[in-house]
Amino acid sequence: MSAPTTQSGAEAMRALFAPKSIALVGATDKSGWSLATFDNLRNHGFSGQVHLVNPRTEVVHGQRAHRSLSDIGEPVDMAYVMVPTPAVLPVLREGAGLGIRSYVVLTAGFGETGPEGMRREEEILDFARENRLTVLGPNGNGYINATAGTTPYGLPIPAPLLGGQVGVVLQSGALASSVLSFAQARNVGLSLLTSMGNETMVSVTDVIDYLVDDPATKVIALFLESVRHPERFARAARRAARAGKPVVALKIGSSKIASHTAQAHTGALVGDDRVIDAAFGQLGVVRVRSLEDLIITSGLLAQVGRIDGPRIGVVTPSGGACEVIADRAEQEGLELPPFAPETVARLKEILPGFATVQNPLDVTGYVVVDRTLLGRALEVVADDPGIDAVMLLSDLPRMVPADPAPTLLHFGATAQRIRDASRPVMVASNILTDITEFGRHVQEETGFPYVAGGIEHAVTAIGAAVRWSRDSPRAADGPVGPAPDRRPVVHGPTSGVWTEYRASQLLCDNGIPVVPSAPAATEDEAVAAAERFGYPVVLKAVADGLGHKSDIGGVRLGLGGADEVRRAHREVSDVLRERGHTGIGTLVQPQRSSGVELLVGVVRDPAWGLTMAVGLGGVWVEVLRDSVLRLLPVGADDISRALGELRGARLLEGARGTEPADLDKVAEVIARIAGLAAGLGPGLESMEVNPLLVQGSRVEALDALITWN
Amino acid sequence: MSAPTTQSGAEAMRALFAPKSIALVGATDKSGWSLATFDNLRNHGFSGQVHLVNPRTEVVHGQRAHRSLSDIGEPVDMAYVMVPTPAVLPVLREGAGLGIRSYVVLTAGFGETGPEGMRREEEILDFARENRLTVLGPNGNGYINATAGTTPYGLPIPAPLLGGQVGVVLQSGALASSVLSFAQARNVGLSLLTSMGNETMVSVTDVIDYLVDDPATKVIALFLESVRHPERFARAARRAARAGKPVVALKIGSSKIASHTAQAHTGALVGDDRVIDAAFGQLGVVRVRSLEDLIITSGLLAQVGRIDGPRIGVVTPSGGACEVIADRAEQEGLELPPFAPETVARLKEILPGFATVQNPLDVTGYVVVDRTLLGRALEVVADDPGIDAVMLLSDLPRMVPADPAPTLLHFGATAQRIRDASRPVMVASNILTDITEFGRHVQEETGFPYVAGGIEHAVTAIGAAVRWSRDSPRAADGPVGPAPDRRPVVHGPTSGVWTEYRASQLLCDNGIPVVPSAPAATEDEAVAAAERFGYPVVLKAVADGLGHKSDIGGVRLGLGGADEVRRAHREVSDVLRERGHTGIGTLVQPQRSSGVELLVGVVRDPAWGLTMAVGLGGVWVEVLRDSVLRLLPVGADDISRALGELRGARLLEGARGTEPADLDKVAEVIARIAGLAAGLGPGLESMEVNPLLVQGSRVEALDALITWN
Repeated sequence: MSAPTTQSGAEAMRALFAPKSIALVGATDKSGWSLATFDNLRNHGFSGQVHLVNPRTEVVHGQRAHRSLSDIGEPVDMAYVMVPTPAVLPVLREGAGLGIRSYVVLTAGFGETGPEGMRREEEILDFARENRLTVLGPNGNGYINATAGTTPYGLPIPAPLLGGQVGVVLQSGALASSVLSFAQARNVGLSLLTSMGNETMVSVTDVIDYLVDDPATKVIALFLESVRHPERFARAARRAARAGKPVVALKIGSSKIASHTAQAHTGALVGDDRVIDAAFGQLGVVRVRSLEDLIITSGLLAQVGRIDGPRIGVVTPSGGACEVIADRAEQEGLELPPFAPETVARLKEILPGFATVQNPLDVTGYVVVDRTLLGRALEVVADDPGIDAVMLLSDLPRMVPADPAPTLLHFGATAQRIRDASRPVMVASNILTDITEFGRHVQEETGFPYVAGGIEHAVTAIGAAVRWSRDSPRAADGPVGPAPDRRPVVHGPTSGVWTEYRASQLLCDNGIPVVPSAPAATEDEAVAAAERFGYPVVLKAVADGLGHKSDIGGVRLGLGGADEVRRAHREVSDVLRERGHTGIGTLVQPQRSSGVELLVGVVRDPAWGLTMAVGLGGVWVEVLRDSVLRLLPVGADDISRALGELRGARLLEGARGTEPADLDKVAEVIARIAGLAAGLGPGLESMEVNPLLVQGSRVEALDALITWN
Repeated sequence: MSAPTTQSGAEAMRALFAPKSIALVGATDKSGWSLATFDNLRNHGFSGQVHLVNPRTEVVHGQRAHRSLSDIGEPVDMAYVMVPTPAVLPVLREGAGLGIRSYVVLTAGFGETGPEGMRREEEILDFARENRLTVLGPNGNGYINATAGTTPYGLPIPAPLLGGQVGVVLQSGALASSVLSFAQARNVGLSLLTSMGNETMVSVTDVIDYLVDDPATKVIALFLESVRHPERFARAARRAARAGKPVVALKIGSSKIASHTAQAHTGALVGDDRVIDAAFGQLGVVRVRSLEDLIITSGLLAQVGRIDGPRIGVVTPSGGACEVIADRAEQEGLELPPFAPETVARLKEILPGFATVQNPLDVTGYVVVDRTLLGRALEVVADDPGIDAVMLLSDLPRMVPADPAPTLLHFGATAQRIRDASRPVMVASNILTDITEFGRHVQEETGFPYVAGGIEHAVTAIGAAVRWSRDSPRAADGPVGPAPDRRPVVHGPTSGVWTEYRASQLLCDNGIPVVPSAPAATEDEAVAAAERFGYPVVLKAVADGLGHKSDIGGVRLGLGGADEVRRAHREVSDVLRERGHTGIGTLVQPQRSSGVELLVGVVRDPAWGLTMAVGLGGVWVEVLRDSVLRLLPVGADDISRALGELRGARLLEGARGTEPADLDKVAEVIARIAGLAAGLGPGLESMEVNPLLVQGSRVEALDALITWN
């Protein structure tokens, strides 16, 4: 879509997903796709007209077929196109002439096959744009609008199709069937499922935008092979955050860590997948790692919405389950705080004497005798002032009992307690099996809430719900960064590589604290500078375009007197001369004696733009790759959080006997570096401050490197 | 059991699990447990006599009841006891008199309730031992011997009960139902399921031993809350390894990292859960983290057994699935190598032109047209010389088609190709849903192999199979360590804390390289030693029982001349004197200039005995807790592997510009430390070498600390 979020784009999407009449063009008894699409429209509640078009057969799927779209003789809202590849464009031409605006193109043989197919695909795109058509696909199975019962979709849909609040967008057609089966098995209702195909025109972002506006949809679930339009994706994700609709994404391709080539060290730290992690985190998008988690987490979020914090009260009928939950909760960063004294007292009144009253709570096998035990304990735990939400372990029945009435009564009573509970209640089953037909019947009859399937995946989902609740308000606020009107002070032409002296000067000119530094062309100048700073000093090589100085012995530390400074200057200059450098000299700086070294690097990611990596110096980045990423713009608050995510974060707190860092000051300086980088415009390729030395509240850049493109 | 692995113990276990007649003592229509047990015995194939015993009711469960065991009047092999707690011992007394040897005690109210219950439980144990009875429980639901169709089990067993090759042992009764449901849902057949209860007499280890000998069992699956008898568990695990039967364990309690208190740093590194990890690793026990993985992994191992290596060829009908698999495979340490040229050529012959021939392989949606495509591609990939096994993605059908014949033919043909394939084939479904009745029918009719449920869990299972195949032969060999006849040289009484000088002497006396070191009582002696070594030197505080010297400024580095040595000796002595120490002096050593520092610590774990931690010094252990554990005894080979598991392993390879370490030498020295610790006997509480300095092939202990108990 040329302008997907404009009114006209949104209107086009609504028209695409709500046709009153559909023509299946290329319908034939010989094609499984045609048969499936026809059956789907007939069996899942589509109330409009379905026209079949086949130029060579009179009767298809037992219904009279038309020779062409024009032959139909009445208005058609949407064409579902499954003709041979070369015939697709002619069908669009014919349809456009008849005023048909919406198209799903199942036919393959386009961009996915090579340059010739790509050319065909571009023809279609051009034609559609010129004629203001909306095309989903090609090479996609279509969509399932479960809310409307409109199912122009080319693969069999397992019955029953459960309508609900989760909108699913998939970049893989084959996995859609798995998603449908699993959603049905877990009783997760869908609002819309879209199989994107080649995304020639309608993109994932367009469908997200539609779902944000769709009143039936509460959660948006994505299966992504790639994020094709990062900026538009970010905008759509922020719209979802503002609408309070969680976006849950399974983004694949994490195994292909394509690292960028940049002259700065930072380059190696920025893999595509880590950028996705950073972007999703900043956008409040919940990232999951399996198809099961995609659906289970989406289902839970659709039920529970926002929860206030990570403190969970757990109520179960089994000690073993309690420990499994405790293990998984720790891994997910959830807290299971001890119950308040009044909660303990109330629980002791209702539980058998041999029960141990603690969080997680095992109400004991006595539930077999008194089925209300779990529900009554739940009620009490939900009142505890120290928790944010309750996790209730309860399996739905699998088999139909001889007399279903007591089961329905029991689940009805628990459902009522859950609705009345003073905090949100999330229900999980012990293990991940299908919800049977009877289990679904119990849920429907009693209003028993969503049951997340199995402790393993349920705790993952609860962790995701807590993180989404925490992160999405920030994402809704949008990017926070430097005021856009602030233009950096830049001297000289911005090209090539700016090594230490010029780079540091730029930082200094723009309010970033830099260690004092004096250039020296001669030994005498070096000594004069050293005496001005006081010993010991550091002496560094300077030459045009010289990058990593230490590789050629160009950094001399701990120079304690004039003689040492002279010798260092001489030796460094000789090396530079021997290597044929120009612009030779040295730089003299006071030597800082202790502190924690950080690396702050900004590189331009080809997809997501300027991306900042912050890490601890030395082994931390070189061996452990311990760094955190943030897309720019980024504010000091978010940088503070990022610093806390470093594995070596304790070093900044003084773990190794150094002065604890003034973290606000550190975050503020790093935010200024981020702001400077963002302000330098598209010419900036990378900027690296390494090290940024932190001594308590003194934060200073000791060295810097900037690459322009 | 007093001697569980002796012939008599094994006989007792066989008798327990194969009774010809069973008496349900305390049977009553009022108890769900009684009803369930009776129904289970009636419905799941038990062909022997079931006697009901109730002193007050004539007819129970529609069958004539006996007043007592004695009233039965014919031989009984086993009593299933569900009488009130105080009546359990009298029942055992009566049964013993009648020659009944085997008992399952469902009744609760014993050790789990407190001291009074504990006393009752001990009475039962004493009586059973004296009378050579075998008692499973109390407070356990019994067992399900699916092979024999013998099911004295107190909770409903979902039908059908699928017999098979996985033996399950559970320390949680409540979760057994989940395991049963899930095994059924995944079509995993069980040989035996045992719900252990309090393990008063029959322990998990006894059941493992039974399953190792049971011809029906190929895999042993454990749900463990604790390992009660580590030594016996280790012995049983090694027997399983020798029998080629994988042991798969879900051991819970990882969130309770109980750290030991030892004077050495090592203490903090050894949490219970990490010791379990180390022990399981050395014993070839596969550790999983969810109930789903427990069953899915066990099912896969039962089918595929040992595989030769981690190189997997993947065959799928979906590009999206390929990427999901690639991501997960990387996380599991699996390799998906490129196909050999001949494989590529053969695949190109059978796949459509637009298919991309690579590993993982997507045979494309063309399978819809040609169903044989997947099977034929599988055949080719299995021949690839560069792979160890094949992963085939294939869902079983969920719904019964109008005509099942083509489906059965198709799956039959694929099953045949799998059987004929030149390498093991592991089948996985896209997503984790139940195998439906029709799906199970297809498997039974066609011999289609086990299908691991969902990519997520299936790849976990394949990773586990690869690790088991690699580790279990080592576990079968048993512990490898120093020759047991080698007695360490020890001077003086082994008590209290041995600080640097004495501890280093002990190392030195036993062939472990130690940095040269001279004790100095006076400034003159310190200088004399320093001049002998050459400057710079290190001077360290010595005093009786002095532990962490650096905390009191007792380590002076880089002393460059006599004056500095004198001053250091004086200052250190003064500090020690002020603090009231006795046995005051200093130790002078040559200062080593570079290298990588390791920490090698041995502590006595209360459950598992001597445990060794090896880590990199400095931030690596202090901030990152980067260390690896091994139980003693341990050989140099295993230590080499352990070093490779360190996150900072690259430092030893020279990542920071230091000389690459001679890893064989390092492992050899650490093995000698392990051997010394193991040889020192039960008096050793802990031994820490910190640092062990590595400079290329020079490996030297610079400091040591030994605690005796």
